[in-house]
Amino acid sequence: MADMAKLRMGNELMQKGLTCLGENCVIINVTSAEQAVLAEEAGAGAVSVSDMFSADIRAGAGVARMAEMDTVLGIMDAVSIPVVGMVRIGHVTEAEMMQAAGVNMIDESEMLSVADAVYHIDKSKFDTPFMCGAQDLGEALRRIAEGAAMIRVKGEPGTGDVVEAVRQLNTIMGEVRSLRGKDKDELLRYARQIEAPQDLLIETAILQRLPVITFASGGIATPADAALMMNLGADGIFVGSGVFRSKNPAKTAKAMVDAVRYYDDPERLVKISAGIGGSMRGQSLIPVGSTESDDETA
Amino acid sequence: MADMAKLRMGNELMQKGLTCLGENCVIINVTSAEQAVLAEEAGAGAVSVSDMFSADIRAGAGVARMAEMDTVLGIMDAVSIPVVGMVRIGHVTEAEMMQAAGVNMIDESEMLSVADAVYHIDKSKFDTPFMCGAQDLGEALRRIAEGAAMIRVKGEPGTGDVVEAVRQLNTIMGEVRSLRGKDKDELLRYARQIEAPQDLLIETAILQRLPVITFASGGIATPADAALMMNLGADGIFVGSGVFRSKNPAKTAKAMVDAVRYYDDPERLVKISAGIGGSMRGQSLIPVGSTESDDETA
Repeated sequence: MADMAKLRMGNELMQKGLTCLGENCVIINVTSAEQAVLAEEAGAGAVSVSDMFSADIRAGAGVARMAEMDTVLGIMDAVSIPVVGMVRIGHVTEAEMMQAAGVNMIDESEMLSVADAVYHIDKSKFDTPFMCGAQDLGEALRRIAEGAAMIRVKGEPGTGDVVEAVRQLNTIMGEVRSLRGKDKDELLRYARQIEAPQDLLIETAILQRLPVITFASGGIATPADAALMMNLGADGIFVGSGVFRSKNPAKTAKAMVDAVRYYDDPERLVKISAGIGGSMRGQSLIPVGSTESDDETA
Repeated sequence: MADMAKLRMGNELMQKGLTCLGENCVIINVTSAEQAVLAEEAGAGAVSVSDMFSADIRAGAGVARMAEMDTVLGIMDAVSIPVVGMVRIGHVTEAEMMQAAGVNMIDESEMLSVADAVYHIDKSKFDTPFMCGAQDLGEALRRIAEGAAMIRVKGEPGTGDVVEAVRQLNTIMGEVRSLRGKDKDELLRYARQIEAPQDLLIETAILQRLPVITFASGGIATPADAALMMNLGADGIFVGSGVFRSKNPAKTAKAMVDAVRYYDDPERLVKISAGIGGSMRGQSLIPVGSTESDDETA
């Protein structure tokens, strides 16, 4: 995180209270004030607020919207860490209400139902910083061009399977590395190819990373998963169902926070992971025994 | 609504008692006199009467027809606000009966079962004004040509998911804006292309809006949804299952009415949305986590 000062809107983010983003940080998804307090006590850098956990949404619990206003306001009262309000993609009014409620950041999240199947929110019109999900470099830079101050890999929320988060983070990192070998004409051509704004692509090529803070999310269920995403280059992680669908949410939350801090210390990760009870069961995205990933070596 | 005077049949609508349509208005779908009274007390501009709620129709409750005559007459006795009688598409006799019963307006509604799979009712033969649903500009202008005095975006009633209503309203608004850049020959060609009457298309191009009052309906489940539709350009909204399948219908109805009035005041919307209990759960039309809307900005 040494180059954080160079990151687009990094300073603004800090001003908005997301000081957690200055170091390895875990944002925990919660649906109630009790869960938010648990997350703060576990050392989470921030909480994000939704109506339901992604595991329940995935199980068909209905339309997933921004949380009830009482829940959002109650959580803001209950904790001193930053609060991220999750809103539906394209639901400008949910975002305006979250801003009016005074959340520290807004997550325009694909974890909720989609409100506008064509357009994302024009985030440049807001004072509150936004984060958005992305699966590849083009998508990430389109969201940043719309005003997103932070990107997170989407993964597959609610599955407890980290495979998609890994694939997407590796895709973005690999695309960023590939920029190093390109001259300016090739960069401009590549920008058109992946439908990314040219200035942002050139900035990415120079920085050799996304020009905003980049988290991993969607399927992180164990301290080992959390540490893996950090080892792959994430600036921090999101976890939700992985904590609250585990056997012991308080211990699991604490272990996630510690795993992100000591991600490159396997001995310590062994101790962190011992005694936390059981992880969420989840569902495997790739049938076990399939040969899908036996062609290459990481 | 400043240009309401210019709207086709606007004056006639007012004469018929739909004074609610002069300002931001919520029409609440009800199935009984008790619900109609609740709607009136919440500040609804009108009630529309059906046999069942769309959520139940969608869940397979059987053929959805116009309401029992006792219900319609009972509701007209119970409330002083205008009453809209819902009839099946193409069911001329249901419409004639509603007119004879003395309702203020008739909704030839796709929310009910279809009575005639080929022809809509010839609405020009009626004294009672009609409204119809539409998904795009061509469909809206065909209904207006048949005599509809009001259009509502169809959305997906009974889902609690606003995404289709958003898409359809944005489609119509975008098509109307696109007319601005066309000369007369292009307008006539476009009218043939979208199968719209030429005179109505030219009128729409000049007014830069549909020539009748335009509401949003189908999946509006929260005050934020209601305000969003107003922000996108609707003159008012319909809500039904969103009120009566919520935790507290009376509070939700009141919040919907207030949200439509103060749709551009996010601080007020936060207060309006606090303490209403829970919204209807519904069902998500686009699977959560899909990547459908990652390409453009609002």
